[in-house]
Amino acid sequence: MDAPSAIRQVEIRRVRDGRSAGDAVDRVVVEAPLEIRLAGVPTTVVMRTPGDDEELVRGFLFTEGLIIRAADIHGMRRPTGLAADEVGNVLDVELAPRVVQIRPQRSFYASSSCGVCGKSSIRALDVHAPVIESTLAVRRSVLASLPKRLSQAQAVFEQTGGLHAAGLFDTEGELAVLREDVGRHNAVDKIAGWALENGRMPLASGILVVSGRLGFEIVQKAVMCSIPVIAAVSAPSSSALELAARFGVTVAAFVRGSSMNLYTRPERVVVDEA
Amino acid sequence: MDAPSAIRQVEIRRVRDGRSAGDAVDRVVVEAPLEIRLAGVPTTVVMRTPGDDEELVRGFLFTEGLIIRAADIHGMRRPTGLAADEVGNVLDVELAPRVVQIRPQRSFYASSSCGVCGKSSIRALDVHAPVIESTLAVRRSVLASLPKRLSQAQAVFEQTGGLHAAGLFDTEGELAVLREDVGRHNAVDKIAGWALENGRMPLASGILVVSGRLGFEIVQKAVMCSIPVIAAVSAPSSSALELAARFGVTVAAFVRGSSMNLYTRPERVVVDEA
Repeated sequence: MDAPSAIRQVEIRRVRDGRSAGDAVDRVVVEAPLEIRLAGVPTTVVMRTPGDDEELVRGFLFTEGLIIRAADIHGMRRPTGLAADEVGNVLDVELAPRVVQIRPQRSFYASSSCGVCGKSSIRALDVHAPVIESTLAVRRSVLASLPKRLSQAQAVFEQTGGLHAAGLFDTEGELAVLREDVGRHNAVDKIAGWALENGRMPLASGILVVSGRLGFEIVQKAVMCSIPVIAAVSAPSSSALELAARFGVTVAAFVRGSSMNLYTRPERVVVDEA
Repeated sequence: MDAPSAIRQVEIRRVRDGRSAGDAVDRVVVEAPLEIRLAGVPTTVVMRTPGDDEELVRGFLFTEGLIIRAADIHGMRRPTGLAADEVGNVLDVELAPRVVQIRPQRSFYASSSCGVCGKSSIRALDVHAPVIESTLAVRRSVLASLPKRLSQAQAVFEQTGGLHAAGLFDTEGELAVLREDVGRHNAVDKIAGWALENGRMPLASGILVVSGRLGFEIVQKAVMCSIPVIAAVSAPSSSALELAARFGVTVAAFVRGSSMNLYTRPERVVVDEA
């Protein structure tokens, strides 16, 4: 079985010029875990866009210093007998005997922006949290204003161009807390830490706004915090949307000016305010 | 000792309107590892922007499911007796006895876009590779053209807005290989895998171009591949530049139109071609 496609179609509710513009089909990039096994043993998971999986594994093992030449890999195969969500997402590597012997003792790790780094199998990615039942509602005009409020509140970004921001807002558009980091998920973890320290957890009436793209790890963290609505300036990934759908999180993405796309649980956004 | 500053000043060589525009001081965002210890035991490293470190650790342990309330942490302190590069970058957490007992058996992991995920200590971040001695030279006009060539060659990005690209070029601006992924470092690992598979490693005459920001993990992977020049469309991080300086990699960033900033080993870029 080949790897899954790199693109997936999803149904969205479009908002244009501040008004409902009907349902449509949007194309999102697929983000899916690739489990790397060594001699049949699940070893590490990287969150990747399917395609060129063998190259990815080869390059990953090389840049991690585990192999130093192509011949250090004797073979690679896609195992059979997998669970449905593992199909196409597992590669089993047979290393040369010499490499197996010199395998470094330090823990094997994954380079990834996915928030699943270092986990050793797809099974370990399961998120354990309650489904979000919130009846919170936010006006479209308020939601549309949040990315600008976020960027205006950013202290560091203007100076370096290198930081992601995450902000927690209420339904009136008031900023509760903003945090910045080179890692977008770190910014969200900082917000979670702030909430814990200030007796604000769970964040059941909060709206999380992130400055860039929306990946799996951001939704996972929002779910752990019981946040019902996420707004992102850029594109969401397939696994972010799947997780949001499963846990009842509203996702608005491409929130730009008076336009946005609503991907999951759109009923929490009051679009036509009359 | 407090955490290091979030901003660092670095000396750069500026190129404007296609010409040398003198040396200047630029501000880059600090990216530095934070080692989290539990009861004195190094447990995981997250690459973060210093600031709000306690919040980050609290939120990280919460969104990882290791704690469920603020009271699950009895205390946090910055240990003494650290090595120079650890100072300000280690937090030791004392968990409540109850939490220690229920600590999940699954491997602890880090959410990060840093490429150090899952490593358990700052010491484990060391990069082992030869310094790059390449005398390769690339004309400024060629380097300036690469981001556009990269985006023109991207098949998927235009459709979803969700993918990062990495491309390997030669000094004449010819594209050897382009790979895309939700994770920028995955795209680079795919290039490394391609090079291994096609007998092209080491990539000692290659120029690596990335579509976004330049972090530690991209430079680490380039160093492993012996790539002498990296060009990025957006900002570099402090640790990316430190690693590039240490291993002799040329970094050009903010490569936009006829402007760019040269951060390390600028002599490989022939600016005034006349």
